[in-house]
Amino acid sequence: MKIALAQINPTVGDFAGNTKKILEYAASAGDMGAGLVVFPELAVCGYPPADLLEKAVFIARAEQAVVELAGWTAVRGRPAILCGTVMAAVSKVGKQVRNVAVLLAEGKVNFVQQKMLLPFYDVFDEQRYFEAGTEQTLTCVDGQPLAITICEDAWNDKGFWPRQMYSVDPVEGLMSQWEKRKTDTAGKQRIILNISASPYWQGKPHVRQSMLAAIAVRHGAYVAMVNQVGGNDSLVFDGSSVVIRPDGGVAVRAASFAEDLVVFDTEDGEVAAADAFADGVEELWGALVLGTRDYVRKCGFSKVLVGLSGGIDSALVAAIAVEALGAENVVGVGMPTEYSSLGSIEDARKLAKNLGVRFELLPIHDVFAQFQHVLQPLFSGTSFGLAEENLQPRIRGTLLMALSNKFGALVLTTGNKSEMSTGYCTLYGDMVGALAVIGDVMKMRVYALSRYVNRVKEIIPWATIEKPPSAELRPEQRDTDSLPPYEVLDPILEAYVERYCSAEQIAEEQGVDVRLVKSVLELVERSEYKRQQAAPVLKVTRKSFGMGRRFPIAVKVQV
Amino acid sequence: MKIALAQINPTVGDFAGNTKKILEYAASAGDMGAGLVVFPELAVCGYPPADLLEKAVFIARAEQAVVELAGWTAVRGRPAILCGTVMAAVSKVGKQVRNVAVLLAEGKVNFVQQKMLLPFYDVFDEQRYFEAGTEQTLTCVDGQPLAITICEDAWNDKGFWPRQMYSVDPVEGLMSQWEKRKTDTAGKQRIILNISASPYWQGKPHVRQSMLAAIAVRHGAYVAMVNQVGGNDSLVFDGSSVVIRPDGGVAVRAASFAEDLVVFDTEDGEVAAADAFADGVEELWGALVLGTRDYVRKCGFSKVLVGLSGGIDSALVAAIAVEALGAENVVGVGMPTEYSSLGSIEDARKLAKNLGVRFELLPIHDVFAQFQHVLQPLFSGTSFGLAEENLQPRIRGTLLMALSNKFGALVLTTGNKSEMSTGYCTLYGDMVGALAVIGDVMKMRVYALSRYVNRVKEIIPWATIEKPPSAELRPEQRDTDSLPPYEVLDPILEAYVERYCSAEQIAEEQGVDVRLVKSVLELVERSEYKRQQAAPVLKVTRKSFGMGRRFPIAVKVQV
Repeated sequence: MKIALAQINPTVGDFAGNTKKILEYAASAGDMGAGLVVFPELAVCGYPPADLLEKAVFIARAEQAVVELAGWTAVRGRPAILCGTVMAAVSKVGKQVRNVAVLLAEGKVNFVQQKMLLPFYDVFDEQRYFEAGTEQTLTCVDGQPLAITICEDAWNDKGFWPRQMYSVDPVEGLMSQWEKRKTDTAGKQRIILNISASPYWQGKPHVRQSMLAAIAVRHGAYVAMVNQVGGNDSLVFDGSSVVIRPDGGVAVRAASFAEDLVVFDTEDGEVAAADAFADGVEELWGALVLGTRDYVRKCGFSKVLVGLSGGIDSALVAAIAVEALGAENVVGVGMPTEYSSLGSIEDARKLAKNLGVRFELLPIHDVFAQFQHVLQPLFSGTSFGLAEENLQPRIRGTLLMALSNKFGALVLTTGNKSEMSTGYCTLYGDMVGALAVIGDVMKMRVYALSRYVNRVKEIIPWATIEKPPSAELRPEQRDTDSLPPYEVLDPILEAYVERYCSAEQIAEEQGVDVRLVKSVLELVERSEYKRQQAAPVLKVTRKSFGMGRRFPIAVKVQV
Repeated sequence: MKIALAQINPTVGDFAGNTKKILEYAASAGDMGAGLVVFPELAVCGYPPADLLEKAVFIARAEQAVVELAGWTAVRGRPAILCGTVMAAVSKVGKQVRNVAVLLAEGKVNFVQQKMLLPFYDVFDEQRYFEAGTEQTLTCVDGQPLAITICEDAWNDKGFWPRQMYSVDPVEGLMSQWEKRKTDTAGKQRIILNISASPYWQGKPHVRQSMLAAIAVRHGAYVAMVNQVGGNDSLVFDGSSVVIRPDGGVAVRAASFAEDLVVFDTEDGEVAAADAFADGVEELWGALVLGTRDYVRKCGFSKVLVGLSGGIDSALVAAIAVEALGAENVVGVGMPTEYSSLGSIEDARKLAKNLGVRFELLPIHDVFAQFQHVLQPLFSGTSFGLAEENLQPRIRGTLLMALSNKFGALVLTTGNKSEMSTGYCTLYGDMVGALAVIGDVMKMRVYALSRYVNRVKEIIPWATIEKPPSAELRPEQRDTDSLPPYEVLDPILEAYVERYCSAEQIAEEQGVDVRLVKSVLELVERSEYKRQQAAPVLKVTRKSFGMGRRFPIAVKVQV
């Protein structure tokens, strides 16, 4: 039997567009001889719909879309469609919505499998919306039995994970049914289908595939996982859909960070092995480009503005934007003050030239002076400090937003994760923007990505990469005036922000003075209020700022 | 038996401070003759700790605090302490933390009841953190059996709610044990204790008390509920702890919006009936004042800045700030442009005088002109529009933040819920600030609150209340240029934002043209990106902007 995996990029709430896309892919799968085409979790409405799920009209529209999809199978005959969607719950108690896989064939919904395990950690809130399934059964297409699971249902294998999050393992449950229902299953290849909306973090495509391989081997089954692809706000779905053979080898794998349609044949034996995954930096680059492109596009925009300081963060963001949207859709804006070095302006201009983007220079000396003049009656007698420093990025933020308002382009924020962690950024200043493109990328990775951008030729001026990092908000300022060198800082932040280690554990693990560690952790705690007003951050690590990391502000936290 | 309800205001994470407070209240309860003193849910660590619960060190500190509290009962003898806290889970599967009530007496933990029902809707994420209890038993103090429940455990009564959120009712479960264990319970007064951290919305104190009364009557029991009081970020806990008699009458009630310690005696019959709750506006005022005071205080600040436009929103926020923090801790800042009417400046000055707060005038004409000059090369040939309008609030936001940085005062945001709903506010402009004090208050309620402020004498100038609302960003601007009158707008917004009605339902319900409704709903959908970068909003309705309302941005939503 030929089964197609349709790795699509739906838009949340776009029922018409998603339905059209599903039918186009189903038609192509039919042309390729598939008897069944499988779409991702919640493909009909897009993932994650969040609180849209609490609106009755949203559920009704999803149910209407399924009727339309089922109708297509009546007309076309083949292939059958297995697709993720939402449905009203049947129970009178508990949540009113189900996350389901529906099997559509011969014009009707032939089978419904409700999601059994609902993740509720990090960025996942599924117990907020869905009633968990308590029953599961095998289904059958063209005489081939199939075990159907939805995303998290396959993430509780006791052979793979050291600690179980749930007391049941739906894969195990279905395989035990397979064993018992000998009349239907005897002599049939075991096939486990998993429809997913599994967001990206660096290294996850590899972890996910290893986990699926462990399941395939343990149960002697083909495991076919189709994952959503595309950016939805903070989340990037990498796709990387895959079919694993019962021996754990990869039968076929779809693209990462792009839509794809792949077919596998359960009767075929060997298929060419998939390539290894891209290396860390290349994978990260793919995620950031897709996340940026989809955020801008799905918000209904095409153009972006990037403030170019001559520094490495804004240079990298501009390079990502050009890859995501095309040079013609990116405008760089330089906004120097008296503390900006001449080299910085030249570096910014050179970057824009290398990228082929328009560059505008709006010097802010005079606005800065005028602000200081207005404040003079209140500030006189005080010395130049944080208030004056912060005026500069806030003027820049205001200018970028004025250009955004005037010309209908989104502003991309350029701060990195090291800055956002320590609060080394100005709220309503350099934090202004629609999307924090590299807000989940620590500074040392910003360097690695910048070298990746330059792998063929100089795009980001080498001077930008090599000069000591500086916010240039006062004469001769250096990041290291306020922070430890990034080689020391980043691992401390990673341990605290991403792994929740204590100060003592970090000092021990990294051989750093515990007082230095605590001084850094205090910066993290003190700047939570800034992060809660930040632009959405593209998530590329296990723990990014935003919806997956929820800390209170008005607290007393002992580091 | 005398039982004391200690309605305290803990600070999240302040184990030393919370422990000290608990022991002070316990000592006072002992002085009042109580054999048992009951504290709110998670009183040891404060509620809600959010992702702090995912840090092992946080759980360890809570467990250490309980050891200290237990130690006190060894030294003092009486009263026993019933207190909410967190504990590591015992199970090897699932979440690693329990939300529990611990009974401390004779130097040790005598009894632990795990929370059975974990809310996971609106602002609640408890399934993210806690493993739900599956067992419950009665406990006993001084020979008196007690049924102990934790907050949500009492919120699933099938006699009170039309739809059950959970399949079990822990109160029913405990009362059925009471029935069966005749040897312990025969001849004893039924007592149900409920330790809560139940956040406020307008009307909730009344709903909560009615629900508890229904439970008391149904089970023929005293129901004693002790609720946390205080502001924690967006949430305001109103306290309003109460003891309901088996006949449904109120035996005793603690203060709303203030700490309190009340005692009831299960041997006594009648106690004076509690007063009715404050009316809607007075209750709302109490919540806003407490939320503002605690946010500022728990963030470690004492002073605030409010931009005073001469309009009603900023006037109300200033009045709330004065009540919360004292006039000496509030500074009003007027920042007029050429579009500000002379009357507005005079109204702002008069308000400051009436409130007794310092007033600073920082005219922004010149900065505004300078910005336009810098932008002129790019803007020439375009006409004055949104970009120019928005420059003005952004200049004001920048000035307020400069004052904040210089003098260490928090900025309070002055936007109301009607504006935040429709996006009739400027991101990084008037949305600048640490706390959106009235971000959950629709404009018509802003009027009601302002009249309440003036109930004895004019505080908010009547001219401010009576003039047509205007943002004053261009000549002769009126809110009604862009929006329907607030009498029409607010009910539409309330239905859509708080009750998730569809356009058709709203048009029907309110007798308004469905096209007008849809034009308003489109404003709501189009401005989600602004709300996600807003300051925390004090929640005073069932559905406020912020953590309890989670909508995606890059979507296609059909209204």
